[in-house]
Amino acid sequence: MSAIDLEANFVGLFTALAQIGRHDNGVGSTRLAWTREDLAARAWLTDAADQRGLDVEVDRNGNLWAWWGARDADVVVTGSHLDTVLAGGAYDGALGVVSALTAVDGLRDRGTPLGARSLAVVAFADEEGARFNTPTFGSGLMTGRRDPATVLSRRDGDGVSVGDAMADAGVDPGGVGPDPQRLARIRAVVELHVEQGRHLVDTGHPVALCSGVWPRGRWRVQIDGEANHAGTTRLDERADPMLVLATAIYAARRRAQQGGCRATIGRVDVSPNGASSVASQVTAFLDARAGDDATLDAFAEQWWADVRAGADAQGCRARLEVDSRGAATAFDAELRARLHRRLAPRHPGLPAIATAAGHDAAVLADHVPAAMLFVRNLTGVSHSPAEQAEIDDCLAGVVALTDALEELIGA
Amino acid sequence: MSAIDLEANFVGLFTALAQIGRHDNGVGSTRLAWTREDLAARAWLTDAADQRGLDVEVDRNGNLWAWWGARDADVVVTGSHLDTVLAGGAYDGALGVVSALTAVDGLRDRGTPLGARSLAVVAFADEEGARFNTPTFGSGLMTGRRDPATVLSRRDGDGVSVGDAMADAGVDPGGVGPDPQRLARIRAVVELHVEQGRHLVDTGHPVALCSGVWPRGRWRVQIDGEANHAGTTRLDERADPMLVLATAIYAARRRAQQGGCRATIGRVDVSPNGASSVASQVTAFLDARAGDDATLDAFAEQWWADVRAGADAQGCRARLEVDSRGAATAFDAELRARLHRRLAPRHPGLPAIATAAGHDAAVLADHVPAAMLFVRNLTGVSHSPAEQAEIDDCLAGVVALTDALEELIGA
Repeated sequence: MSAIDLEANFVGLFTALAQIGRHDNGVGSTRLAWTREDLAARAWLTDAADQRGLDVEVDRNGNLWAWWGARDADVVVTGSHLDTVLAGGAYDGALGVVSALTAVDGLRDRGTPLGARSLAVVAFADEEGARFNTPTFGSGLMTGRRDPATVLSRRDGDGVSVGDAMADAGVDPGGVGPDPQRLARIRAVVELHVEQGRHLVDTGHPVALCSGVWPRGRWRVQIDGEANHAGTTRLDERADPMLVLATAIYAARRRAQQGGCRATIGRVDVSPNGASSVASQVTAFLDARAGDDATLDAFAEQWWADVRAGADAQGCRARLEVDSRGAATAFDAELRARLHRRLAPRHPGLPAIATAAGHDAAVLADHVPAAMLFVRNLTGVSHSPAEQAEIDDCLAGVVALTDALEELIGA
Repeated sequence: MSAIDLEANFVGLFTALAQIGRHDNGVGSTRLAWTREDLAARAWLTDAADQRGLDVEVDRNGNLWAWWGARDADVVVTGSHLDTVLAGGAYDGALGVVSALTAVDGLRDRGTPLGARSLAVVAFADEEGARFNTPTFGSGLMTGRRDPATVLSRRDGDGVSVGDAMADAGVDPGGVGPDPQRLARIRAVVELHVEQGRHLVDTGHPVALCSGVWPRGRWRVQIDGEANHAGTTRLDERADPMLVLATAIYAARRRAQQGGCRATIGRVDVSPNGASSVASQVTAFLDARAGDDATLDAFAEQWWADVRAGADAQGCRARLEVDSRGAATAFDAELRARLHRRLAPRHPGLPAIATAAGHDAAVLADHVPAAMLFVRNLTGVSHSPAEQAEIDDCLAGVVALTDALEELIGA
């Protein structure tokens, strides 16, 4: 029997963190990287670690580590991030950090021995990248995926650079960069996160393992038509790029439905953007993600064929550029199988679901064995105050994380 | 037989005016109101009037009048405007002024007596409104349609006000306003203009009479959806206003084709307009014009039903506002019938076509008998260097205008 009240422990931690940066109207929280709110959340984690006798360290990239055991031992890492998007919800990042602390308490309560290993609760710095457009900042720098010089010069909407913001927060920006020694000591990383979708709602499971991160692509399409008088120009004499945009929007949805992809046109720039002129040019950005590269490529090819045909039909010219392309991330198969075996007794039919979002664990996955656990999200909504997990599902997540960590420490 | 060479006379005038404000690359001309280029065009007209012994006057609103006959007599007015849009063509406005001067020469060559009447060649000030968003400035002030205080405070992209621009051009902005005495002496106005469409190309006529100006409307539709993560949000869980925009664009074209209207979505504003976010809100402007109010209303109603259905299907909310609504302008039926009778012998089957654009003659039509002549435009394109009329059609226009003026002076 447990000597601690798991629910009270979790709720106490979760509620305290959720109040930091909460909006006055009670709807949503904002903790952008290196702001007062972010620092308050880091202070909160430092306090919670102190209360548990965990040794707190800020690494060269501003990631916050709370050590149970020696810093120079092989380490099992768990955690997530404390920063949020603008007007984010209470779960993204926070759930992983709170569950990690609660799991440490659970392991101690169970009397799980550390042996020669360490366990570290980590809050990665600036995972959202919402202030400087620098997502997975801390893990990206640690693994060398991000270039320090490029990232430090980025500025927020007020013109403050990343470097100045870090310095003001007491972290030396001169120290950021790859941290191979630290990576080399990591035996495994397990990040718990609220699901950013409704797969678990639909399948009736409280938790899932993550199978990997979908590949993604971003394309920029420029459609050139002919500026003209909105009143006097006959319909059949127009070359209106707005109609090609409509084709691109519809085709993205239809082809994504057919191919089982996600596709979004979320950004559109129109020129001259005058209410009484046929537009001369429309630029649109397509974001698409799929379970594998072949599916994503096939989707993009079909979509582009639709857009080209639409441009031809309207007498417009369309030009496509690849803006960015992210490869698929596969989480370590052996680690995944091992965690599946360990968790299956409590979770028969435990699903393995892919995610289309970026995470620190996925960044680390190229270098160390990494895994993710997802907790059911009633709304499926993400990056919004509407994200919502029931307390029983959160506790199931904590227990699953505790089991997973016990498995990894013990082996 | 004519003592003057009509073609050489026309070409000389047209070519001289077209060179004022012509772009260095030879494609297009720019003569924005009250700029150096506009003033050079006004000086050119003043010279051309002087050479013809016409008495030049600038009225209180900056319109330029070249009088044949006494200023206090009943007057038949012809002309158009000298200003252009940004990178406009050689015909819009200019063709009407050049044809008016050539028609004066033609009337004198024919020996047409003025009698107790006068004839005035007018260049209305700032018809395009391209610099200050003040279209039909000169005629609008003259008729009281435009409020002087409102219009004088408008500023161009460099922050220069209309008032300062006029003062710098030597026209006292303190004097602008209604000019009822001048209006009261006008027997009729005939404005010749290059066609802004291809009706005459399709029907094989060099010239047409204008039957009236179409009513127009501008609507603003705001579509609210739900901001979400472009990667993690399943397609069937989105409320994406961009898909409703696509419906609005398609429906505008389809319903306009069915109803014989013109409809354009030329301005779109997206929020937050991020490439990796499902948009939360899209605002679009619909410009629509039709032959009569009932047709326009029916079009707008059908379009809005389509948009509402699209919003419902996507789980979005759509809200419609009327941004502006312009009534139809009917040109004087008696004047039109009289000119038709006069021109029909040279132009069997002379078409009467409506225009969907604004003109000074249409502004005056609410106060005095007004008519317009259109000259065939090979491309049908307007407000662009692509507008193009063949010399034979221009000369047919001059002869038609000469006949029309002879008819009106003589009666």
